[in-house]
Amino acid sequence: MRRIALKIGYDGTDYAGWQRQENGLTVQQVIEDVIEKLFHEQVHLMGSGRTDAGVHARGQVAAFDFEHGIPVDRLKLALNANLPVDIRVYQVWEAAADFHPRFGAKQKTYAYRFINGDIMPPELRRYYTLVKETLDIEMMEHALKLLEGEHDFLAFRSSGGMNLSTVRTIYRTALIKEEEGYRIEVTGNGFLYNMVRIIAGTLFEIGKGKLDLGCITQALETGRRQLLGPTAPGTGLMLMSVEYTEEAK
Amino acid sequence: MRRIALKIGYDGTDYAGWQRQENGLTVQQVIEDVIEKLFHEQVHLMGSGRTDAGVHARGQVAAFDFEHGIPVDRLKLALNANLPVDIRVYQVWEAAADFHPRFGAKQKTYAYRFINGDIMPPELRRYYTLVKETLDIEMMEHALKLLEGEHDFLAFRSSGGMNLSTVRTIYRTALIKEEEGYRIEVTGNGFLYNMVRIIAGTLFEIGKGKLDLGCITQALETGRRQLLGPTAPGTGLMLMSVEYTEEAK
Repeated sequence: MRRIALKIGYDGTDYAGWQRQENGLTVQQVIEDVIEKLFHEQVHLMGSGRTDAGVHARGQVAAFDFEHGIPVDRLKLALNANLPVDIRVYQVWEAAADFHPRFGAKQKTYAYRFINGDIMPPELRRYYTLVKETLDIEMMEHALKLLEGEHDFLAFRSSGGMNLSTVRTIYRTALIKEEEGYRIEVTGNGFLYNMVRIIAGTLFEIGKGKLDLGCITQALETGRRQLLGPTAPGTGLMLMSVEYTEEAK
Repeated sequence: MRRIALKIGYDGTDYAGWQRQENGLTVQQVIEDVIEKLFHEQVHLMGSGRTDAGVHARGQVAAFDFEHGIPVDRLKLALNANLPVDIRVYQVWEAAADFHPRFGAKQKTYAYRFINGDIMPPELRRYYTLVKETLDIEMMEHALKLLEGEHDFLAFRSSGGMNLSTVRTIYRTALIKEEEGYRIEVTGNGFLYNMVRIIAGTLFEIGKGKLDLGCITQALETGRRQLLGPTAPGTGLMLMSVEYTEEAK
């Protein structure tokens, strides 16, 4: 039995998220179904983590056990030839027998993209969130920097998250001006449920002047979700990359 | 009677182009229908030019005669509240009584965007064209520069174009490296049918080494379409802006 790993990108707009579920088509299901159709083998894809409905990925990593002997380069071609165009496989490799995309992950990077203006450009509407109020971008950068380091991010979690520990380390943050909008980038050793969307929603409130920087430090200290801004829409979020140590892969 | 002008953006993916036609929904029709629904007035939108199926616009300009007295800022809000999200009105203004978006246009800028790699990132698939072969980008830039100035662009026209004169002036060209891909930008006083897509398709062949720079000068001299590359897909094309003299507006 081989353990095959995939690096996957998808446009999450038309999916009910990553993880297989009863109601709604998910990315996991589409890929599993294509593998079964092509190789008559039922596989179970383990992802590095769920993404919600409408959330995109540039570098989701998933793995599955596979009996079929097809070489990895041909498997990549076969998958891309049979998957819908809103799901692409960027890379396929033979992983270690105990490779686990979720537990083995060393760090992940998410991007949250937004437009600050009065009109959402139609060609960006699936990947950006529109914020109409004037934003103090510099103040948002200050707020973002407060999140770096090891903290208890309990306040930055939506109910429904199942993690026992809510302590995470954020290694790097950046607020980047793009040609058309902005991108909040956050790299950490793990993220709680909706954590990046709550960070984005809180930065927007700070940028509008409706919350001040103190809410971040207070929320980190007290764990109180209600000190922060709303959860920003899934549309703006993209899982950029998941990284592993060489041995773990 | 007022003449109202609109600056419009659209994601052309789900439309049969700009201009109203019997088969397929077009951007012109959608906007005209919304105006009729809202104001019970049948109008005729004159665009700055057609865009084909799948082609996008960031700055299409259109105008129509209108009896209704609604102020332009409220008209903009009303249109955006009732148009589908893949069509947006960026600007509305009272135009001169004889303003004609097509005949009055001083210059237009188109962008053709492409990815050079083996996989099309799902979130770019509606707005970019994928070129898998390795491209000599510098050579493509040389080819693009040969098009600047006044030339007879007969060879750069698909049959179906109806212009009497095929002489046009290209004021500026640029091949720009973006974060994710490349953008060919062309500004000129007018464009023939499929001209930018033929320019892009020819640059791709030159970049692959399948055509050489000489084909451009030869095609400009002889008007022979067959010297050039294929018409690149509409997906990569976007009408960026249409400019007018202050008096014409």
